Amino acid sequence: MKKVVDFYELTMAQVDYFHGFKNLWQCFDVYFRNDRREGAEQKGYSISAGLNEIIDYIQNLSFSKEEIDYLSKNSDLKKEFLEYLRTFKFTGDVYAIPDGTPIFPNEPVITVWAPAIEAKIIETDILNRFNHGSMIATKAKRIVHAAAGRSVMEFGARRAQGLTAAINGAKYAYMAGCAGTSCYGTGLEYNVPLLGTMAHSLVTQFDTEYEAFIAYAREFPHNTVLLVDTYDTLRSGVPNAIRVAKEYLEPLGQRLKGIRLDSGDLAYLAKQARKMLDEAGLQDCKIVASNSLDEYTIQSLLAQGAPIDSFGVGENLITSKRTPVFGGVYKLAAIKKGRLIIPTIKVSEDNTKTTTPGFKKVYRFYDKDTRFALGDLVALADEVIPTDQYRLVDHNHPWKYKDLSNYILKELQVPIFQKGELVYNVPSLEESQDYCSREFQTLYPEVIRLDNPHGYYVDLSVKLADMRNRMIFEQRGVQYC
Amino acid sequence: MKKVVDFYELTMAQVDYFHGFKNLWQCFDVYFRNDRREGAEQKGYSISAGLNEIIDYIQNLSFSKEEIDYLSKNSDLKKEFLEYLRTFKFTGDVYAIPDGTPIFPNEPVITVWAPAIEAKIIETDILNRFNHGSMIATKAKRIVHAAAGRSVMEFGARRAQGLTAAINGAKYAYMAGCAGTSCYGTGLEYNVPLLGTMAHSLVTQFDTEYEAFIAYAREFPHNTVLLVDTYDTLRSGVPNAIRVAKEYLEPLGQRLKGIRLDSGDLAYLAKQARKMLDEAGLQDCKIVASNSLDEYTIQSLLAQGAPIDSFGVGENLITSKRTPVFGGVYKLAAIKKGRLIIPTIKVSEDNTKTTTPGFKKVYRFYDKDTRFALGDLVALADEVIPTDQYRLVDHNHPWKYKDLSNYILKELQVPIFQKGELVYNVPSLEESQDYCSREFQTLYPEVIRLDNPHGYYVDLSVKLADMRNRMIFEQRGVQYC
Repeated sequence: MKKVVDFYELTMAQVDYFHGFKNLWQCFDVYFRNDRREGAEQKGYSISAGLNEIIDYIQNLSFSKEEIDYLSKNSDLKKEFLEYLRTFKFTGDVYAIPDGTPIFPNEPVITVWAPAIEAKIIETDILNRFNHGSMIATKAKRIVHAAAGRSVMEFGARRAQGLTAAINGAKYAYMAGCAGTSCYGTGLEYNVPLLGTMAHSLVTQFDTEYEAFIAYAREFPHNTVLLVDTYDTLRSGVPNAIRVAKEYLEPLGQRLKGIRLDSGDLAYLAKQARKMLDEAGLQDCKIVASNSLDEYTIQSLLAQGAPIDSFGVGENLITSKRTPVFGGVYKLAAIKKGRLIIPTIKVSEDNTKTTTPGFKKVYRFYDKDTRFALGDLVALADEVIPTDQYRLVDHNHPWKYKDLSNYILKELQVPIFQKGELVYNVPSLEESQDYCSREFQTLYPEVIRLDNPHGYYVDLSVKLADMRNRMIFEQRGVQYC
Repeated sequence: MKKVVDFYELTMAQVDYFHGFKNLWQCFDVYFRNDRREGAEQKGYSISAGLNEIIDYIQNLSFSKEEIDYLSKNSDLKKEFLEYLRTFKFTGDVYAIPDGTPIFPNEPVITVWAPAIEAKIIETDILNRFNHGSMIATKAKRIVHAAAGRSVMEFGARRAQGLTAAINGAKYAYMAGCAGTSCYGTGLEYNVPLLGTMAHSLVTQFDTEYEAFIAYAREFPHNTVLLVDTYDTLRSGVPNAIRVAKEYLEPLGQRLKGIRLDSGDLAYLAKQARKMLDEAGLQDCKIVASNSLDEYTIQSLLAQGAPIDSFGVGENLITSKRTPVFGGVYKLAAIKKGRLIIPTIKVSEDNTKTTTPGFKKVYRFYDKDTRFALGDLVALADEVIPTDQYRLVDHNHPWKYKDLSNYILKELQVPIFQKGELVYNVPSLEESQDYCSREFQTLYPEVIRLDNPHGYYVDLSVKLADMRNRMIFEQRGVQYC
């Protein structure tokens, strides 16, 4: 089992082991901050992902004899602690927001309650998968949304940052609404539909473009999509594609399924190609476009009226090229002393980095009639949230508020592990895809637009905000009033 | 075995299988273009990496019965072709530039000669690993170079794009000169030194910072590095670290190994902390800095005279955040007809995308006295390159040239596979690290500076440039003179 564990988790775990923290339960929150995006992509929604992989990891996490041998030779870790590691098993509780949910800054997406050692050892892997998954799901959703109902295909395997970036990245893209992927490994492992056409090298290896097209059509008559830009799109590629449709496919009772444009001015070429195809009676032949596309180029192509039916998206999606880091963090929020839960805080010089203390829950308010999401609330776990009316306050700007009534209140986190046992019914990828699509529809159009989206409320309850402020003042030795 | 194969490689391979290309050998080049970097990082050197993984992949590549079953249920691929896939084995030749070599745009780094089907099926994986490896090795080398002899530690696992991005990315960073990594999986799998200190949460879980420091020092007295910025670096963290050194470590005969700064103004804090440590007689205590560092912040810290001994680098390295895509491509260059090698070309409207035809070799000229690299030459494989004098010409600007004599000529690609058999002595990671360091020293300082590096010559031989031009004119139906 490949493991992403920062080595310091192990050295710190040894400190826990020998200094009275072995059986002390700690509470950590995973969330991301307001500042994770740069430039134009600021402050919008994100789509949570990675949880299903995290579950699998936690269930199977152990340290083999080979690993213990390796550590005893290559580290300062003590023998007694390594023996403990040999029997390591996760025995804690995990609560999390399901994969595919729109999430916003500063709300706990995953909350871990576990003995200190266990909570530390799972940190790095949780962050790696949450950050990668949510980054790709978010980027893919932005692209799918920009495509406004046309299909989006994930084509980025060759530019992905390694194997799991390609294979699992394509899975997250599919969850967020892509139609499928070119990545065979993702099909094989997760049963995501495989898509693809042909490369320029296939066309050039034949003496003529027409021969290459005919050969492809002979092999895949039900599914012939021809790459038409190898020599000259409008003078050669499209006419040859039409010839194949007329001379070869139609006599077989088949239709030409599509053509793909991969270079040049896609808006112009799509319009001209559409006209040529329509005049040849091929109104049902789809136009696929690719070539460094992202949500902005797709939005622009559609604004220009380009008659493109399907987009193949590569490096911009699979690396989230404009924002290739999703800054999820894992912060201590509370510890248990006997039956008491003691909140903890880390106060930072940089205000956005100060943590929110306490064991918390996250709620979303939906309009009862329209089902639109009205805002989120982070509250202490033992608070009771009124179900009839509530005033959401922007706690950074407390003069801004929103009075809510006629709402449905939903708790976003659900129990995943209880005392190390899985208590969650892990949804299939298709179920997550459906769920993601449905939840996305609860967001107001102003919240999901690509640039400068309307701010979405993530409030702290009065009790929580008050506790947080008290603790900040207290830690700085200043009186709170 | 996890597989990154674009599905269209398989559909095209079926076309090859049934249309006379099954036994036709094709030659593909892997290279990257001039335009891969954006903004300030343009046109510099890159460091090649990924080859050793590619070798492993090619050696073990096969399709299992489960995979054939999956494909027969989930694709249009024909039974006969799937039966062929079941017996698939790579039988071709591969030439490549070893991992750790400085490489430049438009020179073939990897050249594959293989039956058409095999050459296609390995494309995606080769590109994925070459692109990921070279991107990380290049970024790490830039950072290590900026650190000017101080050590650089890779700390990015939690922000990496998935598991292989973390585990293998850290390996590439080590190859390019990092001292080690925080990623346990990389230590375990590749024996890269594991490094790390402690997190803020460890400090806050104790009642006082001093107690946390003492506990850590008790566990790791030979290797105590204390994180000093949890509460207040200069008023609390550094004084507590000094107290631990004096009151606990020195009576044991141990020295405080280091402190880590992870927030605030690192230049200011490092200077103040250094003064405090020196005044306490802790001149040998190292200062480690981290917090969103990259080559530019490190260069700036050193320019400000910050007395930092070691840098921990996270997301900026492991995702190559400024340029998260390495645009390596895989292009058909020639086919074999009987004993004849027929060059092929793909002419693009975008001039930088037109390929360079033919089976080629790459040479590097080194100054015989200084050992500096003078420039590279791409020539046809059967050309003989003079060893006494040579005029390197910039073929895009043929009035620019450089007359060379007193040089050593080195062929950069070496044979890796011959008829499917490995003929290359795969170097260990440490050997690649040494080699990378030595080859990097052959580059002129002007070539390796971070911004606007001096252009490095990558010439085409006269014969190759002439052939390429003829083929471009010919394909466009214009007479070449």
